[in-house]
Amino acid sequence: MNATSDTSCAWKAWPDPDIVANLRRMREAAPLVHGLTNSIAAMFMANAALATGASPAMIAAGQEVTQFAAIADAIVIDLASITEQKAATMLDSATAAHRTGKPWLLDPAAIGRLTFRTQFARRLLDLQPTVIKANASETLTLAGIDGGGKGADTTVDSAAAVDAARALARRTGGVVAVTGATDFITDGHVLRAVGGGHPLMARVTGTGCALGIIIGAFLGAGIAPLEAATSAVAVFAAAGERAGREAGGPGTFAPLLLDHLFRLDTHDGAR
Amino acid sequence: MNATSDTSCAWKAWPDPDIVANLRRMREAAPLVHGLTNSIAAMFMANAALATGASPAMIAAGQEVTQFAAIADAIVIDLASITEQKAATMLDSATAAHRTGKPWLLDPAAIGRLTFRTQFARRLLDLQPTVIKANASETLTLAGIDGGGKGADTTVDSAAAVDAARALARRTGGVVAVTGATDFITDGHVLRAVGGGHPLMARVTGTGCALGIIIGAFLGAGIAPLEAATSAVAVFAAAGERAGREAGGPGTFAPLLLDHLFRLDTHDGAR
Amino acid sequence: MNATSDTSCAWKAWPDPDIVANLRRMREAAPLVHGLTNSIAAMFMANAALATGASPAMIAAGQEVTQFAAIADAIVIDLASITEQKAATMLDSATAAHRTGKPWLLDPAAIGRLTFRTQFARRLLDLQPTVIKANASETLTLAGIDGGGKGADTTVDSAAAVDAARALARRTGGVVAVTGATDFITDGHVLRAVGGGHPLMARVTGTGCALGIIIGAFLGAGIAPLEAATSAVAVFAAAGERAGREAGGPGTFAPLLLDHLFRLDTHDGAR
Repeated sequence: MNATSDTSCAWKAWPDPDIVANLRRMREAAPLVHGLTNSIAAMFMANAALATGASPAMIAAGQEVTQFAAIADAIVIDLASITEQKAATMLDSATAAHRTGKPWLLDPAAIGRLTFRTQFARRLLDLQPTVIKANASETLTLAGIDGGGKGADTTVDSAAAVDAARALARRTGGVVAVTGATDFITDGHVLRAVGGGHPLMARVTGTGCALGIIIGAFLGAGIAPLEAATSAVAVFAAAGERAGREAGGPGTFAPLLLDHLFRLDTHDGAR
Repeated sequence: MNATSDTSCAWKAWPDPDIVANLRRMREAAPLVHGLTNSIAAMFMANAALATGASPAMIAAGQEVTQFAAIADAIVIDLASITEQKAATMLDSATAAHRTGKPWLLDPAAIGRLTFRTQFARRLLDLQPTVIKANASETLTLAGIDGGGKGADTTVDSAAAVDAARALARRTGGVVAVTGATDFITDGHVLRAVGGGHPLMARVTGTGCALGIIIGAFLGAGIAPLEAATSAVAVFAAAGERAGREAGGPGTFAPLLLDHLFRLDTHDGAR
Repeated sequence: MNATSDTSCAWKAWPDPDIVANLRRMREAAPLVHGLTNSIAAMFMANAALATGASPAMIAAGQEVTQFAAIADAIVIDLASITEQKAATMLDSATAAHRTGKPWLLDPAAIGRLTFRTQFARRLLDLQPTVIKANASETLTLAGIDGGGKGADTTVDSAAAVDAARALARRTGGVVAVTGATDFITDGHVLRAVGGGHPLMARVTGTGCALGIIIGAFLGAGIAPLEAATSAVAVFAAAGERAGREAGGPGTFAPLLLDHLFRLDTHDGAR
């Protein structure tokens, strides 16, 4: 059975007026997004959030994380390059977010064959992430199905993980965004699809992490989870498509992606 | 009272002959600058120092820091992304620099609302940093005034922190450089102002950290603190202005900034 | 005695048909390369590996490293920005690789004046790195000769380290690649030389680290060490030369280098 055939799936794309309005709202709010990650792409994440219009902070010290969690408008927990020490800090933050109702995003990067992070990601599910952003392998793994993940890459088509995403969303009460050639976003009931993007995205490390913090920015602006995830995914795909048309390869693609995140015009489509 | 109205303020800009001569001198010395930071922008900092003409090293291991401090020509301590472990190493380094009279720079990044780093930065003041580079909020906080800092950003105009900078410089016996749309540099008596730069600088993480290590490079070449800070700030502003004219957004701005730091011609203005 | 005069030295360059064939083979294999590093250039390393055609993973957690070592096709150990904690993890990985016969590369970055990493690098020699990639100073230091290293830079010409490289290769039973204006590769008997590259490479931090992980990618595709190192060095030099012709400085050089690693055409030279 094709995972998308048993339900209506609404396609969304920039410059859908709702998405344009959400981007404008996010930029006006300039939310403070706390990125908890040991990712080697932390600078790229921060720059992607800044370019899109948010105010990122990648606070690392244990003493500061709790204090900052209270200040931040949203929290993004990214398991790429996780360490044991980092995991403890992440758990504290997710617990605080869960208790206070602050929106938080989980990026279960590269779970599957690596036992430590896989178990840790499953444990975080109990703290009900507002949004989970994952590729198909990671989504299948989180849902308890063998996803065959190979490092941070996936060999599984995103459509094959839609049922798992829906189940996962129902279990956490949140939203799941499955990334791939087509991105799927679901709250367990409604299903959205976003196309576009560019194949060079898979040749730049940290693009997935960057999308995670941008979803966090939309959440931090007070936009509802399904709309926040859909808008961020569509914004990211549009910027990626434009960057891909201009880039000479993955090296120039990365700065051009940031340029186009910055240049998306919220005065166009919404008027 | 306007903070700049009670004193003469000398405007400086590239290609002032003294600044050109200082850049030439720094490039000839190619000083070894030790960057102590956990900043996610450490690579950008190292690349900025390399592009300008210095020889940066971002040594991290506790065992190596002390040994390297003795070799380095200048030490740059940047609190962005500080951890408790890192703080201990930074304190050792600053103590060694203070004892041996080696120039060192303090970048009290994001102090204000975060208690740990704020207290740590205040403690480092006793070790008399040769130069403090800070935005207006951070300068006010260091001087004991509520600066309203929001993460690494500031909402306060640099001119509003000039009096605090002057007091701070008198207290430490060093130089304070307050960054903003206009940058102010003071040794507690003389006041310098540098304009230029580009608004895109605020949309790229780590530009402030990069300026810090470039000031460190001028210090490491044996240039007097007030001249070192003024020259580095003017060089950075000129490169930023040129990059801003060519960039399509914050993504392409960052590599173009490095290009222009590299391409500033010391044979032009001084002849 | 000129270090290259006592032996025949074969010059190699892209698009030598063997090198083109090796790149094609590596891209088809898309080997999983595990980068063990605390390098500030870890993102640049991962992006260089991705651009060239490999699948890099920069796993950091102690618990995961051992598990990942079993999955990875090759392991790259890079001492830039090493810490004591990281050293323990690296030793475990190198030991596992040595025991199971998995290819691994050692990049003894910045050894010489820093005692901790110098002793650690010498200790790793007993685990017989498949390839050592080092500049002249680092090669001399590893061979027990004072190399006069200054941070990660070198003031010694690569040709002056050829005898030391040959002795080192005989001792470890592996291959040594000495980088410089001319790169030399030897297994202790055969000597290869690769020219090209571009002076801007020395003005971008992490280019040496990036070459290391690309050699690791060729090793991970099952290519014999001497051919793997020669091919990677030639591929890197060709991409660097092309990037250097287009770049406006070190800032734009880095993304252009990644573009050209990606764009090297394996259908050209081999047909």
